Amino acid sequence: MQDDNKREIINRLRSIQGHLKGVERMVEEDQYCMDILAQTRAVERALQKLDGVILRNHLNTCVTTAIQGDSPAERERVIGELMLVFEQSDKL
Amino acid sequence: MQDDNKREIINRLRSIQGHLKGVERMVEEDQYCMDILAQTRAVERALQKLDGVILRNHLNTCVTTAIQGDSPAERERVIGELMLVFEQSDKL
Amino acid sequence: MQDDNKREIINRLRSIQGHLKGVERMVEEDQYCMDILAQTRAVERALQKLDGVILRNHLNTCVTTAIQGDSPAERERVIGELMLVFEQSDKL
Amino acid sequence: MQDDNKREIINRLRSIQGHLKGVERMVEEDQYCMDILAQTRAVERALQKLDGVILRNHLNTCVTTAIQGDSPAERERVIGELMLVFEQSDKL
Repeated sequence: MQDDNKREIINRLRSIQGHLKGVERMVEEDQYCMDILAQTRAVERALQKLDGVILRNHLNTCVTTAIQGDSPAERERVIGELMLVFEQSDKL
Repeated sequence: MQDDNKREIINRLRSIQGHLKGVERMVEEDQYCMDILAQTRAVERALQKLDGVILRNHLNTCVTTAIQGDSPAERERVIGELMLVFEQSDKL
Repeated sequence: MQDDNKREIINRLRSIQGHLKGVERMVEEDQYCMDILAQTRAVERALQKLDGVILRNHLNTCVTTAIQGDSPAERERVIGELMLVFEQSDKL
Repeated sequence: MQDDNKREIINRLRSIQGHLKGVERMVEEDQYCMDILAQTRAVERALQKLDGVILRNHLNTCVTTAIQGDSPAERERVIGELMLVFEQSDKL
């Protein structure tokens, strides 16, 4: 992991935990369920942005190295991993 | 919010925060980025399950009350809210 | 199905089939794969809009009737169906 | 596009159009809206599988060539395109 990415990812993870602490309070205070749902979904969007940071780092480092390298098996491995990430994102 | 739902939701929120703490450690320890991504996605799935609990509670309480009630405006309001939740899930 | 919804849904289905015919031509003509992917995803978005039309119709008719009716089993059935639709949208 | 991929993609596109023709008939015959929705979603899943075929082809050809090539700008371009595809899949 590149160092600035590492710092950014940890900051995002902490901010998301703080956000969830706030959602917990909303539930304790019996706030309207659709308002609570709006917040859990905001957290999911924040996690998806985090996924984007992790993935871009991965493409720029491990994937690039593997594809430029001499091992066809290693190339196939990273491409297979990328396919899995895409397939998991499929929503239905 | 029904009381047992409230308890369940808070427990899920705490467990998710614990999971994210663990992801933070993985990043600090420079673990493989695809393993980290697998964990953030597991957290997103856990949040989506939580959304399901909130939504089912909402359908059984607020939505049922509104649709059984006398106000067409209120009925339209809850249906509009549900449509928003669906549309947000769809964004491609 | 309300009549104007029925007409709208059929029109959307035909327009989507025309769109897919166009994608087929792009593949035959060996166009750039990312341009083809952009079009299949546009079709998926169009289908999701169609889903929204179907769902709104469903909420305004079957769901409203069931929730206003006297049968708790029927109420539970429509709510269970809605939950399934939401859960399917979420798969990560 | 590799030739066998091309054939597979065109076959899938035609089968999806046939599926949609069938959905059109279901609407004409006033079938239950949740059964229609189940079919439009099956079509969306079929399109997402098609996206997977296109993307795997893209990774094995254009992306591999660009990353193995000498142009950093070209490498950045294909990685940027991949990031866009991922971000679009984000559901919320």
